[in-house]
Order: sequence, then C-alpha cells, then structure tokens
Amino acid sequence: MAFQLSTEFLEDLEQLIAQKKRKAIRKRFEGFHFADVAEILEALDSDQATYLIKSLQSDLTSEALMEVDEDVREKILSRLSPIEIARELDELDTDDAADVVLELDAETQRKVIDRLEDDDHAADIIDLIKYDEDTAGGLMAKELVKVKETWTTAGCLREMRRQAKNVTRVHSIYVVDKEGRLKGRLSLKDLLTAPEKARISDIYIPKVDSVHVKTEGEEVARIMQKYDLEAIPVIDDHGFLLGRITIDDIVDFIRDEAEKDYQMAAGISSDVEADDSVGKLTKARLPWLLIGMFGGIGAASIISGFSASLLEWPRLFLFVPLIQATAGNVGVQSSAIVVQGLANDSLKGNMISRLLKETLLALINGLSIALLVLVLSHFFFETSYLESLSISLAVVVVILIAALVGTFVPILLDKNGVDPAVATGPFITTSNDVFGILIYFLIAQAILGF
Amino acid sequence: MAFQLSTEFLEDLEQLIAQKKRKAIRKRFEGFHFADVAEILEALDSDQATYLIKSLQSDLTSEALMEVDEDVREKILSRLSPIEIARELDELDTDDAADVVLELDAETQRKVIDRLEDDDHAADIIDLIKYDEDTAGGLMAKELVKVKETWTTAGCLREMRRQAKNVTRVHSIYVVDKEGRLKGRLSLKDLLTAPEKARISDIYIPKVDSVHVKTEGEEVARIMQKYDLEAIPVIDDHGFLLGRITIDDIVDFIRDEAEKDYQMAAGISSDVEADDSVGKLTKARLPWLLIGMFGGIGAASIISGFSASLLEWPRLFLFVPLIQATAGNVGVQSSAIVVQGLANDSLKGNMISRLLKETLLALINGLSIALLVLVLSHFFFETSYLESLSISLAVVVVILIAALVGTFVPILLDKNGVDPAVATGPFITTSNDVFGILIYFLIAQAILGF
Repeated sequence: MAFQLSTEFLEDLEQLIAQKKRKAIRKRFEGFHFADVAEILEALDSDQATYLIKSLQSDLTSEALMEVDEDVREKILSRLSPIEIARELDELDTDDAADVVLELDAETQRKVIDRLEDDDHAADIIDLIKYDEDTAGGLMAKELVKVKETWTTAGCLREMRRQAKNVTRVHSIYVVDKEGRLKGRLSLKDLLTAPEKARISDIYIPKVDSVHVKTEGEEVARIMQKYDLEAIPVIDDHGFLLGRITIDDIVDFIRDEAEKDYQMAAGISSDVEADDSVGKLTKARLPWLLIGMFGGIGAASIISGFSASLLEWPRLFLFVPLIQATAGNVGVQSSAIVVQGLANDSLKGNMISRLLKETLLALINGLSIALLVLVLSHFFFETSYLESLSISLAVVVVILIAALVGTFVPILLDKNGVDPAVATGPFITTSNDVFGILIYFLIAQAILGF
Repeated sequence: MAFQLSTEFLEDLEQLIAQKKRKAIRKRFEGFHFADVAEILEALDSDQATYLIKSLQSDLTSEALMEVDEDVREKILSRLSPIEIARELDELDTDDAADVVLELDAETQRKVIDRLEDDDHAADIIDLIKYDEDTAGGLMAKELVKVKETWTTAGCLREMRRQAKNVTRVHSIYVVDKEGRLKGRLSLKDLLTAPEKARISDIYIPKVDSVHVKTEGEEVARIMQKYDLEAIPVIDDHGFLLGRITIDDIVDFIRDEAEKDYQMAAGISSDVEADDSVGKLTKARLPWLLIGMFGGIGAASIISGFSASLLEWPRLFLFVPLIQATAGNVGVQSSAIVVQGLANDSLKGNMISRLLKETLLALINGLSIALLVLVLSHFFFETSYLESLSISLAVVVVILIAALVGTFVPILLDKNGVDPAVATGPFITTSNDVFGILIYFLIAQAILGF
C-alpha cells in the first residue's frame, strides 16, 4: 500500500536489468501489488519493461499489463513471443484477456489463442472477442458463479466451491433454470443465512437486474450507477446467461467518459495525457486552435465591415474584447450545464419551460453586467450616453443569445444522436465570439446611426 | 429495470396523493426499486414527496431518500417528525444514516437519535458523525463481517451467518486478533474452497490494504481505483478495525469530483444542476462573468492606451479578437491537461523537461497558426508586410506564454495546496485575454515603431 516509486528504486532496478540479474529482480518484487508493478513498467523504456515482464511471475505481470497505458502495453506485447503472451493471458479473466487479444494483429491472435493452456478459457476468449468493445458483450467476463434452481443450499455450497476457483471475486450467485436461462439471484448473505437443507428455488430472489448483450456501455454504466449494482448479468435474446459485468470495469468506463468530456470542453479532441508525445498532443490540440483562428478571421471581417465608422466612434472598438469574452463565457457555462444534465440524465421538463428559465437567468446576469459596464464605460472611458447605451444593450442581447445557443445546441445535437459534448469548448466559444461581435456592431449601428 | 417515468404515471400519482389514497399508492409501488422511487420523489413537489415517503414502507423510502438531491432531501426531512426520520434511519447503513443526521440541526439530531430502535445502530451513528465528511472516517460504514484468527472455517461460517444479517453486501471478511486489530483478510472464495476444519490463521491472507481513519477521501478514491478494490477497511492509529468503505460510495465520490472539475473549467463555481433554481444558478454563474467583464474593461484600457496609433494602423485592431481567442483557447487546453494529470496522478517527470516539452508544443502550434494568419491577413485584409509580421509574431508569442501560464499556474497552485481546477476556465481565459492583447500591441509597437 505504502509503495512510492523513488528515483533510487528505479535506478537500482535499471542496473539489475542491464546486468540481467533475473533472480535478484524477482526477489526485489516479492509481495508487490500489480498496480505498483504497472507504475514501474510505465517508468521504464520498452525493452527494460519487456525484460521485467519476462523476469516476473505471470500472475503478477498479467494484471500489471492490464493497468498500463494502451501504448505502453502495445510496445511490450510486440516484444513478446506468442507463447509468452499466452502465459500472461492464462492468468487473466476472460474479459481482460479478450481485450488484450483484440490489440494483437490477426496472425498473432491465432498463434496466441492456440497456445493457451486451458481449452475452456480459450473458447471463452474466442467467444468474447466477437462483441463490440463498447457494448455489454465487450465489457462482460465469462467468469461467474451460477447455480440451478433445483439444488439445495448444501449442494449449492459444494458446487460453488468448485466454480469459485475460477472466479476472482464472488459478487452474486446467479440462479438459472435447467437450460441455463437466468431466473434470479441469490446473495451470499442469503445463502449463508439460509438453512442447509433449503432448496434454492425457495430462497432465491426471482427479480434480477440484467442487461442485453448488445446494450451500449454508457447505458450499462447508467443502470449500474442508478441501481447501485456491483455486478450485472448479461443475457441474450432468449434470456440465456452469457456473462457478467463488474463495477470495477464500469469505474474505469465512467472515469474515461468524464475525462473525455472534460477534454472536449477544453478543446482537446482525443484522449491524451500530459505525458503523451508532442506529436500526439499537437494532433489533439491544433484543430481546435484552427477553429478559434478562423473565428478570429471572421471577427476581423466583421470589424472591417464596420471600419468606416471607426473614425467617428473609436471608443466602440475598445469594448470588442469585453463583448467577445462575455459571449464565450456565457456560452460555455450554459452548454456545460446542459451537457452534464444530459450525461447524468437529470435534464427534465419540457423545452418551453427550459427556454423561459434560461431567458430569465440570462436577463438577470445580462442586466447585472450591463449596468456595471454602463457605469464603468461612461466614467473611465468617457463614452457618450448613446455609446454606453449601445455597449450595455449589446451585453444584454449577447448574453441572452449566447445562453440560448449554449443551451439548445447540445440538446439538438443529442436529439440527433451526436455527442453533445462537442458543443462545448472552442466550438461554442468561437461561434459565440463571432456572433457576439456582429450583434454588437449591429446594435451600435442602429442606435448611433452610422 | 425497465421503469421509465411517464407523465401519465406522475399525473395519476399526484391525483392519488391529492385524494390521500394511501393504500392505492402503496399498491402502485409494489416491487419498485428505490432508485425509481427517488426519480419520482424529485419530480413531485415537497409536500407530495413527503406524503409519498409517509405512505410507503421505510425499507424502500430510506434508500430512495439517499438517492435524491441534497436540497430535495432537506425539504422532505424538514416536513417529517423526529420519529418519522428515525424510522428511515433504522433501515439505512450507518454511513448513510450518519450523512442524513449531519444534515439536521443539532436539536433534531438529538431527538432523532433518541428515537432510533437499535441502540448499537445509534451508537455507531453517533461515532460516525464525529468524523470529517471528506475523510475515510466520514465515508466508512460500521457494517462489516469480521472473524477472529483463532476460529475454524466451520465456526467462521456460523458466526458469519449471524453477522451477515446486518450487512447489505459481503465484500471481504476481515480477520482480527483477539483485541480487534486488523490482521488480514479472507476472501469468500477462500472460505468456500477451504476444508471445513481448517483454522482461519492457516488460510487467511495476512496482507490487506487499509486506510487510516483520517485519510482524505480523494486519496481513498485513488487507492481503491489504483488497486481495483471493492472495499477497504479503515483503521485507527493502533491498527484497530473501525469500519469499511465500499466502492459504490467511491463511485459517487469520483463522479462528484469529475463534475466539480468540469463545472470549474466551464466557469460555474458551485455544484449546480440544470434544474436548480434561477437564484442558485445565477449565484454560481455571475461571479465568473464578472471576472470576464473586468478582464474586458482591462482590455479596453490597454487598447485605449494604444489608441493614438489607431489612425495610422487601423488594421491592427481587426485582429484583437483573433489574438484574444487564441490566447484563451491555448490557456484552457494547457491547464486542462495539467489539471487532469494532477487529478489522476499521471503527471511525471521534472519541471525542466515539462517546460521544454510545452515550449516545443506551443512553438509547433504557434508557428502553424501564425503562418496561416500571415497569409490570410495579408491577402484578405491587405495588411502591410510589417503589420502581418506583427500579427503573426504576436500569435507565436501569445501561444507560447498562454501555454506556459496554463501549464505552470495549476502546478504552482497544487504545490501550494490550492485546488488546481480553479486555474481552468474563465480565470485563465480572462488573464490570458488581457495579457495576450497587451503583448500584441507591445510587439506591434516595437515592429511598427509607434
């Protein structure tokens, strides 16, 4: 638990690897947790990491391999032989093993599966790799404890002892009929507290939450969170029990989704980390900067169109940044709240009431800001009353429009099956910037009459 | 599972409530899941929700009360008598019950605790409310299954049958010494697969991850995620087993933290939802808009300071929005990546190498954008070579500075114990806007010599 990766530890280890002291390395890692091994693998270069994987027992390294970043794993796997990869997969649960297999090319996939020790394990993995990664089928594992409704408590415990050997954690015991159709569940608590001779059919709970094998991962996450489930069984069209999904996979899923939305809001287009390569980071960031740049060129065109009035009303141009910043900020706020509401399903009520509410909110914010701007512009920049009025009125209108755009664009995107999170960040900021500046000059033109 | 809250269901229910048909209501909710009850409670007004709570069995309503928003719960609790609140708490696990008690005023707290049915439960709740909400002590529940190392497997199963009655889910069995100090753990799998006469001391795993009762919630979440734990025991200074934290509480914690960071990045200062009141939403949003407004006034002052050159170089002013948007976007991107890296502990390497990398990344992005701006400004806006050069050079310098500010401000805040997420969103956008515009005019001044 208390392991902290230090520079000394790493330098020491790198030396042992350079000297190929396999035995000393194995001794050094006695009692280590796979999550710590994963941390160490990520700190080493690919050749060193591969040597470490080959040196340690695969019950430790297989789980560590699942914890490292995908690109680190890819580099290590490419340095291992099919038989070495197969030894790692032997130790993994079927869902993790299938994920690893899917990262290999078709040729290696075949070779690795051929070299797996246990035929059942191999068959399960072959079965799992056919499901789409982001569906219940792609998330589920084949390992589970199931009992038939006709058994007794004592017989059930006996059978479970046998099945449990292949299951890392026992969450729920699933009850199936003779053919294997899911009938209900039995909690360990119920089993432990029931009389030994009781029949399963008398004590099991005939109601059980389950998901279809083709359910989207996001929906699985929503259901498991809403109903506080630690595991959920997966069934096919006919109700046959195919596998189960556990909460730890869903925790990773939730975190990944949250990170993706966060990055989207910040204008970063693909899943990157601070430690990724400069090339990868540029690819994720440059496109959004380009959108911002084209927005800037658009704004320049608008201002240019009004530049004839520049000589007469020079002070108007001082407030372009204020209008732009306000439009962008309001748009991001509104869209973020809606995107979050859509993501956690808390967006209720109809469109009309939402419209009224956003309008009211925008008016309150808009009038507050406008009043301050009115006073500040008049006293600090000596704008005329009509100029101050133009600026302040523009602030109100721009806030109103930016709020409505920020609110309804994500809702419309969502209704049309597009991820509403793309509407946040630079995209909405940029369009609000440009429209905001246009509205500002149009209002000023109408009031000042240029 | 398939429950979908419809308008018809709700109208029907509201009518039953208005007619006070308690029995019909109870019948309508047979077989309902508490998460669905929670959804319905949130759709009703406070008086209706309170009537529903009073009508249904508390084993259903207590869990539903834990699922609803804090402000909805507060309103319902204020309409219940101490004895009614106590009946709900009787059904809850100690951690949830303690959370509810903490939401009551001191007077009601005392009355409610006095009216609890089970004295042990009451004592546990009193014990839990003394811990800080965001620490392991505040997150843990008292319910757990523990066995002594001297017992046999059979005796252990017997004792567990007794203890399990108070535990909703059995995660791990904790092994303690005679005095109650945590010695290790026993998985259910191990217990089920061990011979009946084996002693616990022979089969338990002497290594167990645990956290100290004062550990921060964020650290608990990090540890449980890193080591894929579904439950973690909590100990005191002397190693005594105090309680356990389960993954479902941590899932909520992770989601709340992610939402908070997301909102912070979008310039929303407190935890709000789209369905909160206009007043609450204004309070969360207006402060950030004010920051943006003062930034805009700052920008106006800067432009005003250079306005003497406006007549000579009017085209320079066209590109203020472009400079501003670019500075803001780069700052948000850089800060978001760093904030995320700090949050999930993936930020490795020293400051010097990070500085070099960010500089390289900013130069690549900056030169790409600058080249485009150079061409576009020259051909579309007929800027002179020196003007185009000023604008393009400013783009590079502004991107560079915005990237470095975006990267290092969160790191510095974090080192000083401030939540780095405050550095994202309008705060960094606004300061980058203002500095960006200043830098732009200073560069133009140097090149064009005004």
